Amino acid sequence: MIIVMKPGSTENDIKGVSRLLESHGLGVHISKGVERTIIGVIGDKRQLDGIPVELMPGVEKLVPIMESYKLASRTFKPEPSIIEVNGVKIGGRRLVMMAGPCAVESHDQIMEIAFAVKKAGAQFLRGGAYKPRTSPYSFQGLEEEGLKLLKEARDATGLLVISEVTCERAVEAADKYVDMFQIGARNAQNFQLLREVGRSRKPVLFKRGPSTTVEEWLNAAEYIMSEGNYNVVLCERGIRTFETSTRFTLDISAVPVVKSLSHLPIMVDPSHAAGKAQYVAPLSKAAIAAGADGLIIEVHPNPRCALSDAAQQLTPDAFDSLCGEIRKIAEIIGREF
Amino acid sequence: MIIVMKPGSTENDIKGVSRLLESHGLGVHISKGVERTIIGVIGDKRQLDGIPVELMPGVEKLVPIMESYKLASRTFKPEPSIIEVNGVKIGGRRLVMMAGPCAVESHDQIMEIAFAVKKAGAQFLRGGAYKPRTSPYSFQGLEEEGLKLLKEARDATGLLVISEVTCERAVEAADKYVDMFQIGARNAQNFQLLREVGRSRKPVLFKRGPSTTVEEWLNAAEYIMSEGNYNVVLCERGIRTFETSTRFTLDISAVPVVKSLSHLPIMVDPSHAAGKAQYVAPLSKAAIAAGADGLIIEVHPNPRCALSDAAQQLTPDAFDSLCGEIRKIAEIIGREF
Amino acid sequence: MIIVMKPGSTENDIKGVSRLLESHGLGVHISKGVERTIIGVIGDKRQLDGIPVELMPGVEKLVPIMESYKLASRTFKPEPSIIEVNGVKIGGRRLVMMAGPCAVESHDQIMEIAFAVKKAGAQFLRGGAYKPRTSPYSFQGLEEEGLKLLKEARDATGLLVISEVTCERAVEAADKYVDMFQIGARNAQNFQLLREVGRSRKPVLFKRGPSTTVEEWLNAAEYIMSEGNYNVVLCERGIRTFETSTRFTLDISAVPVVKSLSHLPIMVDPSHAAGKAQYVAPLSKAAIAAGADGLIIEVHPNPRCALSDAAQQLTPDAFDSLCGEIRKIAEIIGREF
Amino acid sequence: MIIVMKPGSTENDIKGVSRLLESHGLGVHISKGVERTIIGVIGDKRQLDGIPVELMPGVEKLVPIMESYKLASRTFKPEPSIIEVNGVKIGGRRLVMMAGPCAVESHDQIMEIAFAVKKAGAQFLRGGAYKPRTSPYSFQGLEEEGLKLLKEARDATGLLVISEVTCERAVEAADKYVDMFQIGARNAQNFQLLREVGRSRKPVLFKRGPSTTVEEWLNAAEYIMSEGNYNVVLCERGIRTFETSTRFTLDISAVPVVKSLSHLPIMVDPSHAAGKAQYVAPLSKAAIAAGADGLIIEVHPNPRCALSDAAQQLTPDAFDSLCGEIRKIAEIIGREF
Repeated sequence: MIIVMKPGSTENDIKGVSRLLESHGLGVHISKGVERTIIGVIGDKRQLDGIPVELMPGVEKLVPIMESYKLASRTFKPEPSIIEVNGVKIGGRRLVMMAGPCAVESHDQIMEIAFAVKKAGAQFLRGGAYKPRTSPYSFQGLEEEGLKLLKEARDATGLLVISEVTCERAVEAADKYVDMFQIGARNAQNFQLLREVGRSRKPVLFKRGPSTTVEEWLNAAEYIMSEGNYNVVLCERGIRTFETSTRFTLDISAVPVVKSLSHLPIMVDPSHAAGKAQYVAPLSKAAIAAGADGLIIEVHPNPRCALSDAAQQLTPDAFDSLCGEIRKIAEIIGREF
Repeated sequence: MIIVMKPGSTENDIKGVSRLLESHGLGVHISKGVERTIIGVIGDKRQLDGIPVELMPGVEKLVPIMESYKLASRTFKPEPSIIEVNGVKIGGRRLVMMAGPCAVESHDQIMEIAFAVKKAGAQFLRGGAYKPRTSPYSFQGLEEEGLKLLKEARDATGLLVISEVTCERAVEAADKYVDMFQIGARNAQNFQLLREVGRSRKPVLFKRGPSTTVEEWLNAAEYIMSEGNYNVVLCERGIRTFETSTRFTLDISAVPVVKSLSHLPIMVDPSHAAGKAQYVAPLSKAAIAAGADGLIIEVHPNPRCALSDAAQQLTPDAFDSLCGEIRKIAEIIGREF
Repeated sequence: MIIVMKPGSTENDIKGVSRLLESHGLGVHISKGVERTIIGVIGDKRQLDGIPVELMPGVEKLVPIMESYKLASRTFKPEPSIIEVNGVKIGGRRLVMMAGPCAVESHDQIMEIAFAVKKAGAQFLRGGAYKPRTSPYSFQGLEEEGLKLLKEARDATGLLVISEVTCERAVEAADKYVDMFQIGARNAQNFQLLREVGRSRKPVLFKRGPSTTVEEWLNAAEYIMSEGNYNVVLCERGIRTFETSTRFTLDISAVPVVKSLSHLPIMVDPSHAAGKAQYVAPLSKAAIAAGADGLIIEVHPNPRCALSDAAQQLTPDAFDSLCGEIRKIAEIIGREF
Repeated sequence: MIIVMKPGSTENDIKGVSRLLESHGLGVHISKGVERTIIGVIGDKRQLDGIPVELMPGVEKLVPIMESYKLASRTFKPEPSIIEVNGVKIGGRRLVMMAGPCAVESHDQIMEIAFAVKKAGAQFLRGGAYKPRTSPYSFQGLEEEGLKLLKEARDATGLLVISEVTCERAVEAADKYVDMFQIGARNAQNFQLLREVGRSRKPVLFKRGPSTTVEEWLNAAEYIMSEGNYNVVLCERGIRTFETSTRFTLDISAVPVVKSLSHLPIMVDPSHAAGKAQYVAPLSKAAIAAGADGLIIEVHPNPRCALSDAAQQLTPDAFDSLCGEIRKIAEIIGREF
C-alpha cells in the first residue's frame, strides 16, 4: 500500500499518517518527491482494514500494491493446483469436458444425452436442476427431482455429475447427488452461498460474474477457500459489455491472466458466453488454444424442444465433432483429451 | 414478438413456423418484404416460453416487441404507485431521505447518528447488519445484534429503519426489527432471495445490480411481485463501466427511464455510486433534479473511524447542509422535503 | 511513479533498476516490505517516457502516482478557468446555453430556430454543417453552405455560433464563420485534428469520446493546449455501456470529477446522451444541479421533419419551458442564467 | 423495419403512419395484436432516412430488422472475399502474418526486425510512422522518414509493408511507400479519413474502435467501400470494458460473428488487446483457433529499448517460436501458414 499525499501537505500531515500506521503495527517509508510526498506502508495491508487513511488530513489517495486475496494467489502457492473430483483431475495435462443440457427435463432426456456425451469423450454430465432465470415466468427447473435423475444417469454411465446450487437448500439437496457443485454467474458475489459451499469439502466450479473483475473473482473464490474448501475450479463464461451480437463477451484473456495470478485451474463455458450454438465451436477451440483446462458445454438431444436456452445448445452430433477437433488441438499444445 | 425469416426461406419454412405458433394458440400475421418475410406473433408472448422458434428451419432471429415483465410495467398499471411504509409514503409529492452508517458498529454510534439524521430531516435510518464485502477478511457486520441496535434507535427517535438482507436467515431475523428490507446490488439476481422477500408483505428497497439492464432489473422486481409483495421501491446505485474515477457510474438516466417503463417509485444511492464523499452532494442534487423519489445516503458520526466504506460516508454536518440544498431544489421542481 | 518488484527479486535487480533511473536524472527511494520491495521514483515522470522499466529483471509492475496531463490539471492551475468567447464567459457564475438543430438544413429553418432559442435565453446557436453519421447513406450535412447560413443567423440575432469540425478542411472553412469550434465524440482521439484546432486561438468545445476515461479525455485536451490554445471547454455527452434504454449513458459524475481534477469549464450535452427528447429535460436539470457550467441542446422547429437525429430534438416550446426551469435551479445553487 | 404502436393508439394514428410510409414508396402490413398494433414496413429501409416515424402520434418505437450496411454484408455477397495485396492473399486458406515494431525508430532497428520476422514466416512488415499517442508528450513517430525506412526494408527483404495513416497528409505520403494502409482504433469513426482511403484502391486493414459494436464497425467499413475501395480487411484489437488486467478485452467472438455477418476477411491484433507481451502467444493461438485469417503482432529486436508500447512487444525469438505453434494449429483446422 502506498499513500500519496496532496501537493500542499504539511510535515504535520505526514507525521499524523505515520503515527496512525505505526500505532497499528505497520512500518513506514517516506519518499519526498519534487511535487509530492509518498508514504510506503510496510506490513500486512489487511491490518489497515477499517482504518480510513484516505480521510487523514493531507492524504490524496491510496494505491494498493498487493492483491487482497491470499489463498487463491500464485504468491501464496506458486505451483498450479490440480483438483481431483472422484478420480478425475482438473488442472493437469488432461483436459476435462463437462457436457449436458441446460436443464434436466426428464428421465429419457438426461439418459439419452448422458450416453451421447460420454461416447464423445466427456468425463462430466452437467444439467440444471435449480435454474435462475431472468423472468419468473420461465421454467425454473425440476429441483431435487432433477438431481435424482442426474444421479441415475451417473449410475448408468459412470460419468461424474455437476449441477448448479443457488441457495442453502439446494446445497443440502445436491450434496447427496452430485460430484461437484456449480456456482453460477448470478451468484458470483452471493457471499453467504460461497461460505456455504466453502464449509463443504466437495469441489466447486465457480463461474465468474458478468461484471466482476478478475481481481474481485479471486477475492470471491477466497470466500470459499477461507472456509477450508480449497477444491475450487474457476470458470470464465463471458462478461457484460456494450456488444450485443453475442449474449455476453467471452473474456478469453482471462485464461492466461488467471493462470498468472492464481494457482487454481480455469475452465471456459462458451455456451452461455455466446448464447448461440453456431459460435460454440470456434470459442471452444479458442479457449483450449489459450490454455484453458477444460470446457463446459450445453448439449441437448433435440435443442428445438429444450425448455430453456434452446438457442445455445449443441446437438450430440455437433458435440461429438467438436470433441474430435479439441482432441487434435490438445495434442498440438501439449495436452491430451 | 416478430419472427424474421432468412433471405432464402421457403414457403414450407414459413408454414412450419405458422403451424407451430398456431398449435400453441397464437395468431400469425405474415408480411412478405422485398428481401425478407416477417411473421408477427399475436397473443401472449409468454406462451412461447420453452418453444425454440429460433431453431425452426428458415428462421433468422426473433425480435421481442413487448417487455417480458408485467406487474412492474406501466402498461399493466399506468398511474405511479405510492408505497406506504408504516406511515411514510414513497413515490408521492414528498421526497424520502434514508440515512445512516454503512454498518451498524455500536450502540453509541447508531444512537448518535440516528438523532443527527432525524434532526436534518431524514425519515429512515439505514445501517448494515449483514455486510457483503468484496474480501472475506473485511468486517462482515454485527448480524442480529446490529438489527437490535437499529430497533433501539428506532424506538428512541421515531425514525423508521431499513437494513440489507442477504440470505433467508437474515430475512427471518430482520423481519422482527426493520420497517423495510433492502436487497443489495450483489443480490440483484439472487432469485431465491427475491422470492423470499416476495413471500413477505414488508416493503422492499430493491437495488439495481451493477451489470443489470433496466429491463433485467424490472424482470427481477417481477420475482418479488409475482409472489404477491407489490411494495417494491427501486434504487439506482451505479453500474459498472470502464470509468475508474468513481467506484461505479451513476446511471442518472435510469430515473426518467424507470419512470416511463414502470409505476414503481425510484430512489438513488449516490454514496455507493461515487465511492467518495466529495461527490455525494452533487450527485444527490442531480438525482432529485432528475425526478428521483428520494435518496439513501451514508452518514457516519466520525467517518475516519468507520469500519467499512469510510471514504464515502458524509459527516452529520455535511448531511445537514445537503438536506438544506435538497429542500430548496424540491420546491423548485414541485416536490417537498 | 512507484515500481513494485516481484516477490523473489534480488539485490542486483533492485540495483539495476535504480541505476537505470539515476542515469536518467531521476531520484530513487527504496522501501523493503515484508513480501516485496518498492522503489519510489522522484522527479518528472515524463523523463521515463520511452524507458521500459517494466521489462527490467525483477520488476512486477509500475504504479503511476501523478496524472500524465499537465496544462489541463488543477495541480498546474488551481483556480477555475473562465473561457471568454467574444463577450460570453464560460465557467463563471452565469450558465451558458447553446441550442439549435442537429444539422443546418436551410435558411428558413436556421433563422426560425435562431430567433426561438435566443428568445428562450440561449447565448449560442449550434448547428451541424459537417455531420459524422454512422452510415454513409445518411445525410452528411451542407458543409460550407451550412456555415454561411449559421453566420447569417448570427448577424440577424446577435447569437454566437458554434459548429462541429471533423477535418483540416472543415477547420479552415469554419474559422471564417463560427465563434467556437466543436470537436465531436467520434474525433475525441483524432490527435491530428486536436493539434489543428490547438494551432488556432479560437475557443473549442471538446466532447468526451464514448469510451475515453476522464483521464484520457484530459490527456487529449492536453493535445489542444500544448499547441498553445488554452481556450478549451469540456463537454460530457454520455459514455458507452451495456445499457440500451438510452443511446449512451450520461456520466453525470464526470461533472464533479472534472471539476476536481481540472480547471477547465465543463458543459453537458443531454441530447446525444439520451437519444430521446423525453429524457432531455430531466438530464438537463440534473446536469445543472451537479454543477455543470452550461448545456448544449438540440432544438428543431419541427422535429418530425428533421433530417437527422429527429428523436432527440426538442421543439422550441419545450426548450423555452426547460430554460425556465433551469433559471430557477440556477438561483438555488448560486448561479444565474 | 417494424413500427410498434402504443397501447392506446387510435385508428387515425395507424392511418397517419401508413400514409406517411406509402407517400415515401414503402409498403405497409398491419398486425393488430391483443395489446398492440404492429406495422411492418416493406421496402428499402434507407428510404426512411430522415423520416422521423418515431415522432408520429401513437408510435411507441421502431425495431430495425435488417442491417443498415450493404456492401459489407453477407446478404449482398454470400461467398467470403479474398483480398489480394501485391501477390499475398488475405482471407484464403493460407494465414497471413504481419509483424514488426510498434514504431519505426531507425534504419538499423527496422532492418534487423524485418529480416527476423521474415525468417519466422511473416509476409508483411508493420511499423508505425504516424503514432497517435494518448499523451502529447510521448514519442509521435518519424512520419515520412519512417515510411522511407519501411520501404528500404521492403526492398531488402521482399516483405510487403503496412503502416497506419492518421490524416489526409499521411495517406498521401504513405501511398508512395506502403502496400496496405492501416486505420487505427482511434480513427475507427473518423469518416473523413475512411472516405479518403476509400477513394484510393490500395487495400486497407481496418481496426475496430474500442467502443464500436460489430454493426457500427461494418457500417464504418461501408464508408470505405461506398467510395469504391472494396479491398477492406477487418481487424479485431480489443474493446473497452471494465476489466483492467489487460489493456483492452479481446472480443474473440467477433471473429465468428464477423464471419457470419460479412464476407470480409478478419485478422486479430493480440498485442494491443493484451498490452502485455506475456499474453500475446495464448491470444494469438486462440484467434487462429477461432477462425481468424491472420495476425498482426508487435515485435521489437530489443523491447527494453523500444520508444513506445515496450511492454507489449515480443522479442524476435518469442515471435519465431509463436509462428511455429501457429503453423501446427493451422494444419489442425484446415488452414496453412
